[in-house]
Amino acid sequence: MNLIDETIAAIGPLDEAAMRDARDHQARLTKPPGSLGVLEEVSVRLAGLAGQCPPPLPEPAAVAVFAADHGVHAQGVTPWPQEVTAQMVANFLAGGAVVNAFAGQVGARVSVVDVGVATELDAAPGLLRRKIAPGTADMTAGPAMTADEARRAVETGIQVARELVAEGARCLITGDMGIANTTASAALIAAFTGLPPERVTGRGTGIDDATHAHKVEIVRTALTQHGLLKEPSGPKGHGSLRPPMEVLVAVGGLEHAAIAGFVLGAAALRVPVVLDGVIAGAAALAAAALCPDALGGCVAGHRSAEPGHAAAVDALGLRPLVDLELRLGEGTGALLALPLVQGAVRVLHEVATFDSAGVSEKDAGQP
Amino acid sequence: MNLIDETIAAIGPLDEAAMRDARDHQARLTKPPGSLGVLEEVSVRLAGLAGQCPPPLPEPAAVAVFAADHGVHAQGVTPWPQEVTAQMVANFLAGGAVVNAFAGQVGARVSVVDVGVATELDAAPGLLRRKIAPGTADMTAGPAMTADEARRAVETGIQVARELVAEGARCLITGDMGIANTTASAALIAAFTGLPPERVTGRGTGIDDATHAHKVEIVRTALTQHGLLKEPSGPKGHGSLRPPMEVLVAVGGLEHAAIAGFVLGAAALRVPVVLDGVIAGAAALAAAALCPDALGGCVAGHRSAEPGHAAAVDALGLRPLVDLELRLGEGTGALLALPLVQGAVRVLHEVATFDSAGVSEKDAGQP
Repeated sequence: MNLIDETIAAIGPLDEAAMRDARDHQARLTKPPGSLGVLEEVSVRLAGLAGQCPPPLPEPAAVAVFAADHGVHAQGVTPWPQEVTAQMVANFLAGGAVVNAFAGQVGARVSVVDVGVATELDAAPGLLRRKIAPGTADMTAGPAMTADEARRAVETGIQVARELVAEGARCLITGDMGIANTTASAALIAAFTGLPPERVTGRGTGIDDATHAHKVEIVRTALTQHGLLKEPSGPKGHGSLRPPMEVLVAVGGLEHAAIAGFVLGAAALRVPVVLDGVIAGAAALAAAALCPDALGGCVAGHRSAEPGHAAAVDALGLRPLVDLELRLGEGTGALLALPLVQGAVRVLHEVATFDSAGVSEKDAGQP
Repeated sequence: MNLIDETIAAIGPLDEAAMRDARDHQARLTKPPGSLGVLEEVSVRLAGLAGQCPPPLPEPAAVAVFAADHGVHAQGVTPWPQEVTAQMVANFLAGGAVVNAFAGQVGARVSVVDVGVATELDAAPGLLRRKIAPGTADMTAGPAMTADEARRAVETGIQVARELVAEGARCLITGDMGIANTTASAALIAAFTGLPPERVTGRGTGIDDATHAHKVEIVRTALTQHGLLKEPSGPKGHGSLRPPMEVLVAVGGLEHAAIAGFVLGAAALRVPVVLDGVIAGAAALAAAALCPDALGGCVAGHRSAEPGHAAAVDALGLRPLVDLELRLGEGTGALLALPLVQGAVRVLHEVATFDSAGVSEKDAGQP
């Protein structure tokens, strides 16, 4: 069995008994029932993932920033030059980016995984050199990658998840860097959800109206080229029926394939993943298509300003924890959400029950 | 000059030059302009509060849980017995409540301030015994407190802010405990915003339909009793024209008055405040009515499930950072938001600029 199939075979559903224990325990804690809102359900899901209540605290966390370039950059979908991908990788490794500041604040380690940066990168501490190809091909002219490249990128993501967990991480955080990656994300989200390009294509780093209109047409062209554009008259409510690996090959990025593998790898180890923004959302759709149970331990860290991201988290049935119009990527939104996830679990560990604290419960006979 | 007037006189507007510096600096950092969304504006406001860019990191933080009982409890607005206020104070002091778990996670100190708990509380580490009265009077029968009590409660909040800052806190967090305090909060919010009782009265700890309908009528009765119910035919867009201290006297809680003072005291020292939920929102409306500039350094930590809280933050012009259907109080929502506030400021301290990191900026001539 190959690594991908073996990983998927190891992924199981959330443990119902542990989830029941977590719900029961939440109800006994010294607070009004349900008063921690969305965080109670996060704690329940992580109990289900761990198969025990309380689940282990999701710390330390490790963020993997998957970096790759995109052939579709040639189509003029962004005003940023392609070399910024490599320059920002250098910035991450020097500790100067926002992901470093946010990771430092929560004690998370940052690893940068080169799965497809166009230029050659020198070895450096914190850089995992796993380049599959020097960027994807232009998806408007042909497949973005070969089937072999897609498979190897997914495998790389699985391996990185395994390595970080072996080194002690108990919560994995997705990060990404790659100029033009919101264009590939929009194409993937359109393909997986069946939504039209104009619904899922955003302004990325903040492009003007003309560039945005052009970007929508580029996404449409790519989807049409690969037979992935859903007919408006077609059946409602689902997207591509094509195998997810074929969708990745057609319009994906190497980092999307790797992040999909990262999600699968974490799920097989029953370690939670906090997903960042639209790139992670597109990758998670691929992971969910490969193995629906892989999403059980995923938390949507935030809802980004990209419209495709809202569509992705809706399709995945995830409720983002932070919603502050962020559109930076790198893992920054997920890192901001990490204390919320940790707080959700910490409640199950530390908070007293009505019995243990001698606090009266509400009078069920009273109003 | 008395302490309240002296404090208000010391509060100034945000420093425009420091805010401009912060906006300029944000634009030079290695990220797409505006890509940190709402957090960029938080960093700008805190620079304006500090009068320098970058502003000091808002740490360590200290949370003050203002505890008090409410005479309106006698009207059957909640199924929880009044003694739970004192029992939960004991739970806070023993470290067993959610506020303790969340404060521990972010390294914030918890102080409990008894400004009006109905029962006598023994001295204990972490308890500030500043009782003004053993709870308010029933606001449906007369004023909730005397003018002297309201003044002393506001002064107590100012003093607690001063003490915590003197002991090293660089960010203050509001907390609250008091059975029936959402009823008084609804009355205050209706009085200050002019919204009708049914728009601002929520389910608190989770009451049933019948109790909720009764609670709305109790709020309406109290407002009518004190001439604070806005006529539906009256002018739109503003609430009470009555002096804010009179509104506190009529329908406030001792913790509302104290939290209003806490906000004033922090503003005078130019230390940021992260506001918790509906109780803090009601108190912040009083603080803003006493001194609009006092809100400049306030961040709405979260938007609670209480409808009155959404109305309060809207009226205050604040954008809540966390929105997860929390309705616990104690300071828990504000503590969850603290890492977001700290991250917002940390960016100004730690992130490299395009120049310093050698990262290309976007090509303004390109698409």
